[in-house]
Amino acid sequence: MTDCALCRDDGGLLLWSGQGWRVVRASGGEVAAAPAWYRVIAAAHVAEWSDLSAPEQACAMALVTAVERALRATLTPTKVNLASLGNAVPHLHWHVIARFGWDSRYPAPVWAPAQRDDDALRLAALRQQLPVCDAAVVEALDALSTPSPKENPR
Amino acid sequence: MTDCALCRDDGGLLLWSGQGWRVVRASGGEVAAAPAWYRVIAAAHVAEWSDLSAPEQACAMALVTAVERALRATLTPTKVNLASLGNAVPHLHWHVIARFGWDSRYPAPVWAPAQRDDDALRLAALRQQLPVCDAAVVEALDALSTPSPKENPR
Repeated sequence: MTDCALCRDDGGLLLWSGQGWRVVRASGGEVAAAPAWYRVIAAAHVAEWSDLSAPEQACAMALVTAVERALRATLTPTKVNLASLGNAVPHLHWHVIARFGWDSRYPAPVWAPAQRDDDALRLAALRQQLPVCDAAVVEALDALSTPSPKENPR
Repeated sequence: MTDCALCRDDGGLLLWSGQGWRVVRASGGEVAAAPAWYRVIAAAHVAEWSDLSAPEQACAMALVTAVERALRATLTPTKVNLASLGNAVPHLHWHVIARFGWDSRYPAPVWAPAQRDDDALRLAALRQQLPVCDAAVVEALDALSTPSPKENPR
């Protein structure tokens, strides 16, 4: 659908794609207060989670879980937040967001008003860690994939 | 854990429990703007989604999906929102929320500031539908459960 932002664009920095999904790190204005914000986005234009079959859901959750584990391993967040909302863009996508006790919205959701000023030093330090986190995300997702016949010739 | 609100209390109007989870309809102040707000709550005190095994996740997602389908069938929402945040209460629970184009936050998440006044008439009509939705939720969850030996004597 050409009028759907997630059919038209990657929806962030593209890190990985496969199994009917792609994984991006969010790169819009939403990341100012929560830079470690990843998305697992369906390749197909489908709106609701319950439109998927159980095997399709299991595949999506394996990817979401791999991203969450990579975030936990590399960033040691206070909490990981998962959400599939899609009100603005009804194309199925999971937000996977590392949250920190010092972030300006915590413990409220990232969509709530800020409760305190941004901690510029900690935000800068977190942003510096993101390439390492990106690499861990990609490694975790690659590890999930079934090797292709070419990789296992016999 | 006695200091955990979701270990201590049901966390809403208890509708169903089984398979290591319970399902409630939220009944706190958060429902003023979004009354069709359900939660699928882990019986055990576990914080992160990726702490669960794949079979445990599949069980949880079957319950979340059943709740979502019951909401869609009875309320015909504009969109269903799913989220597992747990910043305030780090005890794994899924929010399953029916959203409507007319609700005061839409299309923003329910945690964002209101964009318009509440539509009191539509909210009242929605609240009147909730017992029917509750019953559909329970029926859908019961249908997922393995029949007990008593129900299948031979």
